[in-house]
Amino acid sequence: MSKEIDLSKYNLRTDLIIDEVNTIKKDYIEIEEYEHDSITINKTKVKEDNQVKNKGTYITISFEDVTDRNNFNKVQNIFERELDSIIKDLNLKKDYKTLVIGLGNRNSTPDSLGVKVSENIIVTRHMYELNEVSPEYSNVSSFSPNVMGNTGIEAVDIIKGIIKEINIDLVIVVDALASSKIERVNKTIQLTNSGINPGSGVGNYRKEISKNTIGIPVIAIGIPTVVDAVTIVTDTINLLIKKIEYMKNNNPKEKLKAKSKVNYLKETREKLNEKEKNDLLGLIGNLSDDDLKSLISEVLTPIDYNMMVTPKEIDFIIDKLSLLISKSINNVLHNIKI
Amino acid sequence: MSKEIDLSKYNLRTDLIIDEVNTIKKDYIEIEEYEHDSITINKTKVKEDNQVKNKGTYITISFEDVTDRNNFNKVQNIFERELDSIIKDLNLKKDYKTLVIGLGNRNSTPDSLGVKVSENIIVTRHMYELNEVSPEYSNVSSFSPNVMGNTGIEAVDIIKGIIKEINIDLVIVVDALASSKIERVNKTIQLTNSGINPGSGVGNYRKEISKNTIGIPVIAIGIPTVVDAVTIVTDTINLLIKKIEYMKNNNPKEKLKAKSKVNYLKETREKLNEKEKNDLLGLIGNLSDDDLKSLISEVLTPIDYNMMVTPKEIDFIIDKLSLLISKSINNVLHNIKI
Amino acid sequence: MSKEIDLSKYNLRTDLIIDEVNTIKKDYIEIEEYEHDSITINKTKVKEDNQVKNKGTYITISFEDVTDRNNFNKVQNIFERELDSIIKDLNLKKDYKTLVIGLGNRNSTPDSLGVKVSENIIVTRHMYELNEVSPEYSNVSSFSPNVMGNTGIEAVDIIKGIIKEINIDLVIVVDALASSKIERVNKTIQLTNSGINPGSGVGNYRKEISKNTIGIPVIAIGIPTVVDAVTIVTDTINLLIKKIEYMKNNNPKEKLKAKSKVNYLKETREKLNEKEKNDLLGLIGNLSDDDLKSLISEVLTPIDYNMMVTPKEIDFIIDKLSLLISKSINNVLHNIKI
Amino acid sequence: MSKEIDLSKYNLRTDLIIDEVNTIKKDYIEIEEYEHDSITINKTKVKEDNQVKNKGTYITISFEDVTDRNNFNKVQNIFERELDSIIKDLNLKKDYKTLVIGLGNRNSTPDSLGVKVSENIIVTRHMYELNEVSPEYSNVSSFSPNVMGNTGIEAVDIIKGIIKEINIDLVIVVDALASSKIERVNKTIQLTNSGINPGSGVGNYRKEISKNTIGIPVIAIGIPTVVDAVTIVTDTINLLIKKIEYMKNNNPKEKLKAKSKVNYLKETREKLNEKEKNDLLGLIGNLSDDDLKSLISEVLTPIDYNMMVTPKEIDFIIDKLSLLISKSINNVLHNIKI
Repeated sequence: MSKEIDLSKYNLRTDLIIDEVNTIKKDYIEIEEYEHDSITINKTKVKEDNQVKNKGTYITISFEDVTDRNNFNKVQNIFERELDSIIKDLNLKKDYKTLVIGLGNRNSTPDSLGVKVSENIIVTRHMYELNEVSPEYSNVSSFSPNVMGNTGIEAVDIIKGIIKEINIDLVIVVDALASSKIERVNKTIQLTNSGINPGSGVGNYRKEISKNTIGIPVIAIGIPTVVDAVTIVTDTINLLIKKIEYMKNNNPKEKLKAKSKVNYLKETREKLNEKEKNDLLGLIGNLSDDDLKSLISEVLTPIDYNMMVTPKEIDFIIDKLSLLISKSINNVLHNIKI
Repeated sequence: MSKEIDLSKYNLRTDLIIDEVNTIKKDYIEIEEYEHDSITINKTKVKEDNQVKNKGTYITISFEDVTDRNNFNKVQNIFERELDSIIKDLNLKKDYKTLVIGLGNRNSTPDSLGVKVSENIIVTRHMYELNEVSPEYSNVSSFSPNVMGNTGIEAVDIIKGIIKEINIDLVIVVDALASSKIERVNKTIQLTNSGINPGSGVGNYRKEISKNTIGIPVIAIGIPTVVDAVTIVTDTINLLIKKIEYMKNNNPKEKLKAKSKVNYLKETREKLNEKEKNDLLGLIGNLSDDDLKSLISEVLTPIDYNMMVTPKEIDFIIDKLSLLISKSINNVLHNIKI
Repeated sequence: MSKEIDLSKYNLRTDLIIDEVNTIKKDYIEIEEYEHDSITINKTKVKEDNQVKNKGTYITISFEDVTDRNNFNKVQNIFERELDSIIKDLNLKKDYKTLVIGLGNRNSTPDSLGVKVSENIIVTRHMYELNEVSPEYSNVSSFSPNVMGNTGIEAVDIIKGIIKEINIDLVIVVDALASSKIERVNKTIQLTNSGINPGSGVGNYRKEISKNTIGIPVIAIGIPTVVDAVTIVTDTINLLIKKIEYMKNNNPKEKLKAKSKVNYLKETREKLNEKEKNDLLGLIGNLSDDDLKSLISEVLTPIDYNMMVTPKEIDFIIDKLSLLISKSINNVLHNIKI
Repeated sequence: MSKEIDLSKYNLRTDLIIDEVNTIKKDYIEIEEYEHDSITINKTKVKEDNQVKNKGTYITISFEDVTDRNNFNKVQNIFERELDSIIKDLNLKKDYKTLVIGLGNRNSTPDSLGVKVSENIIVTRHMYELNEVSPEYSNVSSFSPNVMGNTGIEAVDIIKGIIKEINIDLVIVVDALASSKIERVNKTIQLTNSGINPGSGVGNYRKEISKNTIGIPVIAIGIPTVVDAVTIVTDTINLLIKKIEYMKNNNPKEKLKAKSKVNYLKETREKLNEKEKNDLLGLIGNLSDDDLKSLISEVLTPIDYNMMVTPKEIDFIIDKLSLLISKSINNVLHNIKI
C-alpha cells in the first residue's frame, strides 16, 4: 500500500540540532552529553558545514518546567555557565561591545520570546558614549527588528545596516523556534555559535543571521515554542509502541515504569518485533520515522490540518522563559548578579 | 491486547453539542441543518435535560476562515440573524436590560475571547440612569469576572452578586471553549439558551451559569479555541483511514477528491472493511472512536503529553473573532448597524 | 476688580486629607507627624464625620522618588508597617478573610494603579475551599470592578454584590487619586479606614465605598497620580512668592536655600508684606489661596483648559507604585516576605 | 526686582514652528494661513536655514477634538490632502519606495504615537520582491527604531543603517512632540519636509533626521502630546490678562465673549494698559513672554517641579491620533481609501 501513497520527503520543521543529529554524517560531529540536577546538557560539535547544519558548537539544555521557581533557578545557573563559556571561546578583545537582537513578533505570543528578552536587556552603549558607566557594566545595546510581515524588511538587512553604523564585536540573537519533538516544546534551550535562520521553524525561511552573512561573531539562543500536528501524531504513535513494549513484560515493576515519563524518553526495553508491531499498528507500525512523518503529512497538509500549535498556557510560559534568558544575558555580559 | 490496556472511559473535553450529539438519545433531540454561503448552520433542540446536555436550543455555525474580510462579513450576518432570533424567542419585555459577561482570562491569549468581546460592548446602563440615551440604544451593561485562579472567586458568584444589585432581564455570556474535533478550532460559533460551564473545556469544571443557577435567562456564545493532543491524534488516524478509502478507488476523479477538505468532512466513500483496516492500522484500525480516544489518552496523559494546544496565530484570530462577536451583539441589542 | 470676577467657590479636586486638613474644625482632628529616613508620616484622626471628611484614621506617607531602588525599599517598609497597624486596629477575628479591590481603568495609564495592584495579589480563597493552603497564607481574594464608563455599573454595586455572595471580613480598596498640590503627585500614599469615593479626583463622583455603604470594614489605599492645571498655576504663584522671600534676604546662605526643594516645603522665612506682594503680583499677590484658585479656575474652566494632567513618565511610575503596594499587601496579609 | 532674579534665557521646549515663528527674521519666511471647516491650516515657508528652524515647508493643522468622529474625518481629509501635496512637491520618480519610521517609545503612552502609527502601516516591500502586489499598492516598508534609553543606539543611526541596506526614495518620520502652548496639546499636526529632532521636545536632543543627515528626502509628521508646567503657568497668566481685557468692557455682549475659547485665541480686544497690568499682576504683569517664561522656569526648575505633563486621557487620544495618521499615510501612499 505504501506504493499508493506518495511518501515524498517530509520537510522537517525544526531548528534544533538535537532533532536532526542522526541525519548528519558521524565523522562530522562530536557529541558530549551529561545530566546535572535532572537537566540534560548536550554539546554537539559540527566540524564542517554540511547540508543539515552549519559548522559550530551547539549546546542543548533540556529541562522540565520553568514555572517552578526552584527549577527556574537551576536552569538559569546552567544556562549562564554555558553562555559564559561559549562567549569566552570566541576570544573577543577585553572590552568587546555586544548587540543583543530579539527576533520575532511582539504581537504573536509564541513568537514574542526574542522581543521580550530584548526589552529586559540592560543597555549601556549610550552611557559609554558619555563616559557615565560604572566598570562592572560592559558595553551593551539591544534591538528588535520585528518580522518581515510587519515591516516589509528582512531582519538580517536591518541588523546588517545597524552594525555598519555602530561598532559591535558580538551579536547575540534570541528567537522562538519550532520543535520536531513534543517533549522539547518550551523545555529546551539551544545555544550555538553557528548562527540562526529566523522564522525557519514556522515555515518562512528568512535569510540566515551568522558570521557568514553579517561579518561578526553571532551567538544564537533559541527555544522551541511551537510544534506541528504531524509531530504530535508521529510522537504519539511512537509512544504507543513504547508503552506496549513496557506492558508486554509480565514483571509488575517493569509495567510501573510505563507510568513514568523519564523511562519513555531514556530507556529502551524489550522491543516489539516486526510481527507485534504489525499486529498493533498494521502497516504503519513498521514504517521508519521519516516515512511515518511523510505519511501523516500527506494526510494533514493537503486539507490544511497540519497546523503549528503552541500550549494554551503560552503567555505565562513565554514570560518565564524570556525572564530566564534576559537575566542570564545581563549577568554574563555585565559583572552583576540578579 | 486490548485487555492489557485499561480502556477506561476517556473524559471528553468538549463544550460543543455538535461533538456529542450522537451520545444523546434520539428521542430527546430534534436537528435541523442547512448550508448558506458555504457556512453550515445546525440547530439542535434538546427537549429534556439529560446527562450530556441541558434542555435548550443549540445553534452551531461552522465556517472557514474569518481572517478573510469577505468571509468575516458573511459569518457576521448569519450570526447576527441567529442571535436576534434566539433572543426574540425568549419573549422578554420590550425594554429588557442586558448584561454581557465576558468570561475568561485576559492574560492568556486563547482564553481572552470573552474579555475582548466585553471591552467592545457599547454600554448604556449608566446613561439610562441619567436619561441621556438616544432611543436606538437599549439598556446594556457589560462585565468581565476574570478567572478563579486570578481572583479566588467563582465567576458565577460574581455574576449572581451583580444581578442581585442591578436590575437585569437577560444575561449574554461569551467564552472560549475546547473542541473535540481539529476542524472546529476557531471555526465554529455555538449559540445556546441553555447556559454554560466556564472553563469546562480546559479541564477546570466551574459552576454552571444558566437560568437554573442565576434565575434569569442566559444566552451563551462560545467559540472553541483549543484542542487537546488526543483529539489531534485521533482525528488524524480517522483522516488517514478516510484517505485510504479514497485512494483504494481506481477512478482518478475519486482520488482527486482525497485532496479536498470538504469531501473529508462531508462525504462517505467505499468504506474500508475490517481486514483492510487491520492491514493498515492493526489493532487500532478497528477500535471504536471512544476506545481509540481512551487508548491515546492512556498513552499521553500519564506522562503529561496530552497538552491542550492552540494554533500559533491565535493572537490574530482572537482579535478577529472577538470583533465579530462584539459587533454582532452591539448591532442586535442596539438598533444600529456597524 | 475682584468684584468683577465671579469668585465662586472653586471645587477642590483632591482626595487627600492632608490637602484639606485646614478646612476641618480643630476640635475634630488630632494630628501626629514625624519623619523617618527622609519620609514623612502624618497620622490624622478625624473624630467625627464632618462635611469634609469621614470619621477615621488617615495615614499620609510622603516620599521622594520610588524609581530609586533604595528609596523604594524604605517606602515599602514604612507602608507595610502602617498597613499592618491599621488592619490590627480593626480587631478582626484571627482567620479574617480579605477581598482586595483594584479600582480604576486598566486602559487609562494614570487610572490603572488599582487594577495593576489587584493583578499582583496572591489569591488563596479558592484553595482554602479545597483545603490546599499552607498555613502562612491567609484567605485572600481580589477583584477589579473596572469603571462605570466601561461597564455601565457603579463599582460599589459590583462590590456589594460580590460580598453578598462570598464571606468576607475585610475589604482593601486601592485607587489612583487626584492631588491638589504638585508636590504630592506620585509621591504620597494615603491609607485610611474611612472608605473612598472612587473617581472623585477626576471629577466623576461615584458612590462611596466604606463600612457605611457595604457593611464591612474598608481600608482604602490611594496615591495621587493626576493634578489639574489650576493647581499647577496656583502652586507656582505661591512658590514664586516664597522664592522672592528667600531672595530678599541678603545673607548668601539664605539665598542658597532658595535652590533646595526641602526648604520650600518645610521652612518659612521672612514673609513678604502686603505691599511687597502687591508690587510683585498686583491684585493676585494678596488673594487667599482659595480666592486665587477660584480666579485661575474662572480663567481656565470656561475655555476647557483646566485639564487634569499626569507626568509624561506615568507608565513607568505606575509600574513601580503598583509593585510597591501589591508587595506590601501580600507581605502583610500573608505571613511571607517578598 | 528683575535684577535680583537671573532671567537667563529659558530653553524653549517646542518642536512646532508655529510657536517660534516670531523669533525668525521676517525676510526668511513666508506665511499663508486659512481656515476650513473650523480647522486652521498654516503654511510657513522658511527660505533659508537659520538658528531656529531648518529651511523647508512647515504645514501646521490646528483643530479641536479628534475623539469626535465627525471632526476626526474632517481633520483626516485635510491632513491627507496636505500630505499628498507635500510629497508631490518632492517630484519623486513614479515608483518611489517609502519607508515609514515610527519614532518614540511604545512603553511610554505619550511617546508612543509614532510606534502605533508604524504598526498600522500597510507594508508591501516584501511582496514587491516576490511580484505579489496589486497595482494600487505602492512599495512601502515601516519600522520603529525605539528610543536610545531602551536600545543604547541613536534612532538616526538605525535609520541610516537600514537605508544603506534597502533601496528607499522617501522617508516619512512620525513622532510625538512637545508644545509650548497649552492649546496645541493633542490638537495640532505639523507636517514638514525639513526633518526632525527626535526627543527634542522632551529635553533629550537627539541627532537630527533629515535629508542632510540621511541623504534622502524626509517628511516629518509631529503631534505635540506633552507640555511643561512653565508653559501652563505662562499661558494661564496671559489668559488671565486677556480675560480682564474682556471684562473691563462694559458691553455685556463683549463680556459674553470672555466665555468662548475661540475669542481668546483669535481676537484682540481693548488692551490693558501698563498701569492696569501692574495693578492686576504687579511686576510680572509687564514682563515680556520670554522673561515671564524665564522667571517661572527659575522658580520651578531648581526644585524639579517643571515637569512635562500630558492630559490624563492620553491613552485614548493617542489611539485616535495614531489611527488618523496611519489611515492617512496608507491612503496617500497606496491608491486606496479606508
